[in-house]
Amino acid sequence: MENFTFYSPTKFVFGKGTESEAGALVKSFGGSNVLVHYGGGSVIRSGLLDRVKASLEAAGVKYTLLGGVKPNPRSGLVYEGIDLCRANGIDYILAVGGGSVIDSSKAIACGVLYDGDFWDFYCGKPIEKALPVGTVLTIAAAGSEGSGDSVITKEEGMYKRGAGSEFLRPKFSIMNPELTETLPPYQTACGITDIMAHLYERYLTNSRDVEVTDRMIEALLLTMKNEAPKVIADPSDYQARANIMWAGTMAHNNSCGVGRSQDWNSHNIEHELSALYDCAHGAGLAVTMPAVFRYVMSHDEARFAQVAQRVWGVSSAAEGIDAFQAFLKSIGMPSTLGELGGREEDIPVLVKNLCYGDGRTGTISGFVTLDEKDCAEIYKMMI
Amino acid sequence: MENFTFYSPTKFVFGKGTESEAGALVKSFGGSNVLVHYGGGSVIRSGLLDRVKASLEAAGVKYTLLGGVKPNPRSGLVYEGIDLCRANGIDYILAVGGGSVIDSSKAIACGVLYDGDFWDFYCGKPIEKALPVGTVLTIAAAGSEGSGDSVITKEEGMYKRGAGSEFLRPKFSIMNPELTETLPPYQTACGITDIMAHLYERYLTNSRDVEVTDRMIEALLLTMKNEAPKVIADPSDYQARANIMWAGTMAHNNSCGVGRSQDWNSHNIEHELSALYDCAHGAGLAVTMPAVFRYVMSHDEARFAQVAQRVWGVSSAAEGIDAFQAFLKSIGMPSTLGELGGREEDIPVLVKNLCYGDGRTGTISGFVTLDEKDCAEIYKMMI
Repeated sequence: MENFTFYSPTKFVFGKGTESEAGALVKSFGGSNVLVHYGGGSVIRSGLLDRVKASLEAAGVKYTLLGGVKPNPRSGLVYEGIDLCRANGIDYILAVGGGSVIDSSKAIACGVLYDGDFWDFYCGKPIEKALPVGTVLTIAAAGSEGSGDSVITKEEGMYKRGAGSEFLRPKFSIMNPELTETLPPYQTACGITDIMAHLYERYLTNSRDVEVTDRMIEALLLTMKNEAPKVIADPSDYQARANIMWAGTMAHNNSCGVGRSQDWNSHNIEHELSALYDCAHGAGLAVTMPAVFRYVMSHDEARFAQVAQRVWGVSSAAEGIDAFQAFLKSIGMPSTLGELGGREEDIPVLVKNLCYGDGRTGTISGFVTLDEKDCAEIYKMMI
Repeated sequence: MENFTFYSPTKFVFGKGTESEAGALVKSFGGSNVLVHYGGGSVIRSGLLDRVKASLEAAGVKYTLLGGVKPNPRSGLVYEGIDLCRANGIDYILAVGGGSVIDSSKAIACGVLYDGDFWDFYCGKPIEKALPVGTVLTIAAAGSEGSGDSVITKEEGMYKRGAGSEFLRPKFSIMNPELTETLPPYQTACGITDIMAHLYERYLTNSRDVEVTDRMIEALLLTMKNEAPKVIADPSDYQARANIMWAGTMAHNNSCGVGRSQDWNSHNIEHELSALYDCAHGAGLAVTMPAVFRYVMSHDEARFAQVAQRVWGVSSAAEGIDAFQAFLKSIGMPSTLGELGGREEDIPVLVKNLCYGDGRTGTISGFVTLDEKDCAEIYKMMI
């Protein structure tokens, strides 16, 4: 196990009806003039936005609304949000939505206090300050409610890049599993896949002697394996939703990723798919992970065999990857590039964006360092 | 799963040599005039106290020393610490030691800012403020480095009671597994037993649909099962020490105890043993837990069978308890009251203190509510 620092000062308020605490929580963390950032019609139709507004009003907190966040959130709306915050003297950002809304909120939060272009932070510039962010989570997936990470797509060039900083970690996150009960099965399954990806990206490590975090990751994978079929069969299964939601947060707040090198190649390889085809991130990961895993399996077959045995109940590394892919298919996830709208002839563009976009110099690093040729092979395995 | 709030704003700085960061960490959390609280000779002999002092001096932080904390920390030293803090204008408490030192530090921290007797907080009065506490941990056991809990023994009557509050949660905890390598095997095993007790006390729940936290607890129990024999065989096994140390924190920061009722009857029943016989808390738990588990097993046999199968690799509830007790014995823990210095004729006193001490009215509550007769039976099962 390697030296590490773990600091997760997010207050999680979890359970039925907890969105009514939004106003009091914003106030308790010093917010008085809030940007409420959200996506499309579902938070309006469900009445959630009205309940959040009522809670802010009851707490005497001023607010400005900014909707319109799309999946794979774009830089354009971030610039708009930054201008709006400056014009209105905003001191707190409240994200009401899923990972895209939260990530867009984090981008605005760091951009407001920075004189340059916020995109600098998504090209590696360290973040030194940000407005405080709170969240009301509506989908168990990204883990952004408990992490300091954010992923944004730059519209010029359609690059999808991530930034990470302790300043981006939400001060509080309201997590009501009921709010996820109206999600269509496909989106639910995409979220489940993203959570499992966060676990696998941590599992694929070159660090030795990491029994405690291995076991924790396996525990959360087992939770997903057992609870996911329940919500696919019955979207209103509150208890299964609740188990998945807490597992999603634990999967990405890094309590199970400390003291070990991590991978993140699958995420990077997928980002180019959702940037180019605007597919759901989770669906892209469902196609990407099995291909990546098969390609790098020989680097540490014992590690893949361990998760195969402990989680999937099969004996070999290869069987474990097959079982994982079959599981993803069973919850409605795609297995091929074609199902995402991808085409073989785009592979050179995907590889170029992946290996040379925004300052990269021909490789991506993680569990294994992959060059252009490796990445092209992996994309080909998805056909 | 029940509604819950989870808030763990402790910064964990983990790994080799991290005690050198003590001064900078105190300063970053606003401390300028520190009470350094510790136990006996080992932190002096090992040079740890000198390294911590050097780190404080390098950061320009003033300090006052107060040693002498004993296992099962006493109220007398807490009163002394409170007076010392007031006389010296202390604004931060730095605990250098194990659970006893940290718990004593927390008692001082809340006592300094309170006009009445600090013991009120250990009889149920809610804590409303406390000086900030930081820790340099020297034994993986109590989990106090990541919890808001504290247990103190009142010298008049030898009552052992706990207090809990978010105000008692350390701001930071320095965790260097190397510092635990000099611990004798018996103390190491006591710590391991305490960690496993924190897990079992959360596992024994009456809440339904708690798959995610069940799985996390099992993961940490499996970690202890696999890593404990390594450190007993080779006390200088850094990696096993590191796995146990992080498991110990995760076992008690409540990330795996949220949204479910918990037990804590074994802790309460043990507290009377260590209060009366001054035995090590972990050793007392090793004797207490199997007796309690066998006594309450029929309340939810499926739950005991689940942990038997998933952790101990045996099929029935009873076999699982046997396997756990055999494991504790294999790492050097006692199985009987006699090994703790206890005597059958003390049972009436133990039961009276347990069921009627400090305002209790004849029962203790948890997984099962236990009255005088139940508690007497359980103590008899330990003979």
